[in-house]
Amino acid sequence: MKVNGQAHHSIWMKEGETDRVYIIDQRPLPHEFKVLSLRTVEDCARAIKEMWVRGAPLIGATAAFGMYLATQAVERQNHSIAADVDAYYQRAAKILLKTRPTAVNLQWALKKQLHIIKQAVAVLETEQQYALRTALSIHAGDIATNHSIGKYGLDILKAISEKKKGDTIHILTHCNAGWLATVDYGTATAPIYLAHQAGIKVHVWVDETRPRNQGARITAWELGQEGIPHTVIADNVGGHLMQQGMVDICIVGTDRTTYKGDVANKIGTYLKALAAKDNGVPFYVALPSSTIDWEIANGKDIPIEQRSAEEVTHIQGLDKHGVLTQVRLTPANSKAVNYGFDVTPAHLVSGLITERGVCAASEEGIRQLFRPV
Amino acid sequence: MKVNGQAHHSIWMKEGETDRVYIIDQRPLPHEFKVLSLRTVEDCARAIKEMWVRGAPLIGATAAFGMYLATQAVERQNHSIAADVDAYYQRAAKILLKTRPTAVNLQWALKKQLHIIKQAVAVLETEQQYALRTALSIHAGDIATNHSIGKYGLDILKAISEKKKGDTIHILTHCNAGWLATVDYGTATAPIYLAHQAGIKVHVWVDETRPRNQGARITAWELGQEGIPHTVIADNVGGHLMQQGMVDICIVGTDRTTYKGDVANKIGTYLKALAAKDNGVPFYVALPSSTIDWEIANGKDIPIEQRSAEEVTHIQGLDKHGVLTQVRLTPANSKAVNYGFDVTPAHLVSGLITERGVCAASEEGIRQLFRPV
Repeated sequence: MKVNGQAHHSIWMKEGETDRVYIIDQRPLPHEFKVLSLRTVEDCARAIKEMWVRGAPLIGATAAFGMYLATQAVERQNHSIAADVDAYYQRAAKILLKTRPTAVNLQWALKKQLHIIKQAVAVLETEQQYALRTALSIHAGDIATNHSIGKYGLDILKAISEKKKGDTIHILTHCNAGWLATVDYGTATAPIYLAHQAGIKVHVWVDETRPRNQGARITAWELGQEGIPHTVIADNVGGHLMQQGMVDICIVGTDRTTYKGDVANKIGTYLKALAAKDNGVPFYVALPSSTIDWEIANGKDIPIEQRSAEEVTHIQGLDKHGVLTQVRLTPANSKAVNYGFDVTPAHLVSGLITERGVCAASEEGIRQLFRPV
Repeated sequence: MKVNGQAHHSIWMKEGETDRVYIIDQRPLPHEFKVLSLRTVEDCARAIKEMWVRGAPLIGATAAFGMYLATQAVERQNHSIAADVDAYYQRAAKILLKTRPTAVNLQWALKKQLHIIKQAVAVLETEQQYALRTALSIHAGDIATNHSIGKYGLDILKAISEKKKGDTIHILTHCNAGWLATVDYGTATAPIYLAHQAGIKVHVWVDETRPRNQGARITAWELGQEGIPHTVIADNVGGHLMQQGMVDICIVGTDRTTYKGDVANKIGTYLKALAAKDNGVPFYVALPSSTIDWEIANGKDIPIEQRSAEEVTHIQGLDKHGVLTQVRLTPANSKAVNYGFDVTPAHLVSGLITERGVCAASEEGIRQLFRPV
C-alpha cells in the first residue's frame, strides 16, 4: 500500500543485493518514516523481539528472511561450522523462534525453511537458493493470501453496504492487522482497502490499542496514507459505540487461532468481541491459514506473551518541538504488568475470513476449507 | 486520606478565611502535587470544566462551594444586582451546571443550594450563612456517606477473604472513584481502604483509563500514598485477567445511576462489566444516593459528555528531565473522538454499594433503601 503516494511493502529485498533485507521501522511511526536493513539472523531476531516489525504474518516473513540470511553466514564462516550444518540452522531457527511466543506464523515460517534447507544441505549454493526461494515465496504468498482475504471480506462489506443503501459502513478494528502487520494489504484491513478501491464508503473506528498504540500510531497512519476516513478512539470507547449503533462490523486480525476457532489477538480484542455479541454487531477475524495452530484445540493453551511494564508506564510521542520524546505516565513507585494478547473464544466470533473463503470459527468450519499440513 | 503521610481532603476551607476554597489540582498528578484556591463561581466552574477537580461527588461539593462563593459576590456587587437576586443565583447555578453534563451530583448539589438560598434571600448575611452551612454539610455528608459505603463494601470483601482463607483479594477498578473523586475515602475505594485498615490483604488492578488516565495517574497515586499494593494495567487487560481467574471482584464508581439501576460511569466500564459477567466475577458499583437520578429510568437517556479530541491525540507525562511534557500520539491528520462515559445496563451489575447498604441494581432494590426526594 501507499507511503507518501508510493506503493510499498513492509519488507523487501533490492535487486542485485543478496546480503540484506529492508524493513520499515515501525517504532517511530507515525512521526518518522525510517527504513532499516537487516543483515543477520540476529538482526532479524532483534527486529522481531523489539518490534521494529510486528504483526503475525510479517513476523513470519521476517523470520523466513532471517533463515535465508543464515545461509549467507554459513558461507562466510564455512570452515568453522561445516561440521554441523544442521545444528547451525537449528540454532538460527531457535534464535528467531524465541523472540515472541504468541504468533504461530513464526513457527510456521521457520518449519518451512528448516524443511527446505534440510533438503538442500551439503551444497551451499543450493541452501542459499532454496532458502531465498522460500523466503520470497512466503513474501509473495503473503501478498496473494491477503488479497484473497480482502476479496472474501469485500463480499461481507458489500452486503452491509447494500443493506445500508450505500451509506457509509462503520468498521471497528483493534491493533494493527494492516499492511504493516503483513507484507502488503493486511488481514483485517484488506477488505477495507478493497472496498475503498471499489468505491464503497467506509469509515474505520481505530482502537488506540494501548499500551503500544499500534492502532493510534500505525493503523491510523496507514489508513491516512490511503485516504481512508478513520477516527482514533481510546480502547474504552468501542462498547459505547456499539451500544449506540455506530459500528456495523468489527474486523480484527489474529496471532494464533486454534483449529477449533479460539482466537488469540492483541490484548483487549476479547472485550470488543463481548460488546459485539451483546449488541448484535458481526465480529470477524481475518487470517491467513498460516495463523491456524493445528496442534492446539483450546485457546487457553496458547502461550500469552508478557512484555515489559515500561510499555505501560511510559509512552512516546512528538513534543511541541517535533522531537520524539518518551514520558512517564504513572507514579514512580507503582507497578505495572503488560500482557500482550488475550483469547476470544470461538463462540464470540461471527466468522473467519481466510484466503480460501469465510468459515465458521469452529473445527467443522475450518476443516471445510483447510486440512492440517 | 494521606498525602505524604498527612491526612487530606480533596477540597477544604481554612479557618478564618471566608472568601475562598482550596482544592488539589488533579491535572499534574501524580507528577506534581499542587494546591489551588477558588474565589468565584467562575473559578469553580472552570475547575470543574477543565478537570482540576473531577469525580461525581467532588464535582457536587465544588459546585456547592461555588454557590457559597456566589453569595460572597452578591455582597460585593450588592447595588448592581440587588434588583434580581434570585435571577443572579439562577445564573450562578447555570454557570456551574453547564460545566459537565453526565454527573448528576452536580444538579443535586445546585438544587440543594438554590433551595436553601431561596429561603434566605433578602437578608444577605443569612444567604451567606445558609449557603456556607449547606456547602459544609455536603462536604461533611460526603465523608460520612463514603465511610458508610466503605463499611458495607467491607462486608463483601470480608466474605471473599474468608472464602479465600485470607489470601490476597484482587480487586479491579476503573477510572478514579477514589478519595480524590470525593471529599474523602472515595466510593469504590472506600471498602478497599477500610479492608486494608482492617488487615485484610488486598491488591488492586488499576485500569489506566484512557484517555485522561485517571487510573494510572490518580488511583495509582492515592493507593500508593496509602501503601496499598496495586498494579497499573492498560484498559485492554481486565478481560484477560478475569478469564485467568486473577480478579475476585470489580468495584467501580458512577456519575449517574438511574432509579432502575443502569449505571453511567467512565467510558470503558461497560466492557469490564461484560467481562465480569462472562467470567462470573462479581461486579459492584459504589455510590452515594446523590448519584441516583430519580427522573431517569433508562440509561440510554443519560447525557454522555463528549470531550476534546486532544485528550486522545495528546498525552502528558514526565520527560527524562522530570519536566511535565505533552506529546502527540497520533498522525497529525487523523481525527479522534472522545466520549467520556458509557452506560452499563443494570443486569450486568451484581449490586449497588450505598451509604444505606447493598442493594440490587433494580428499581425494587433501590427503593428498598431509598425513596425519591
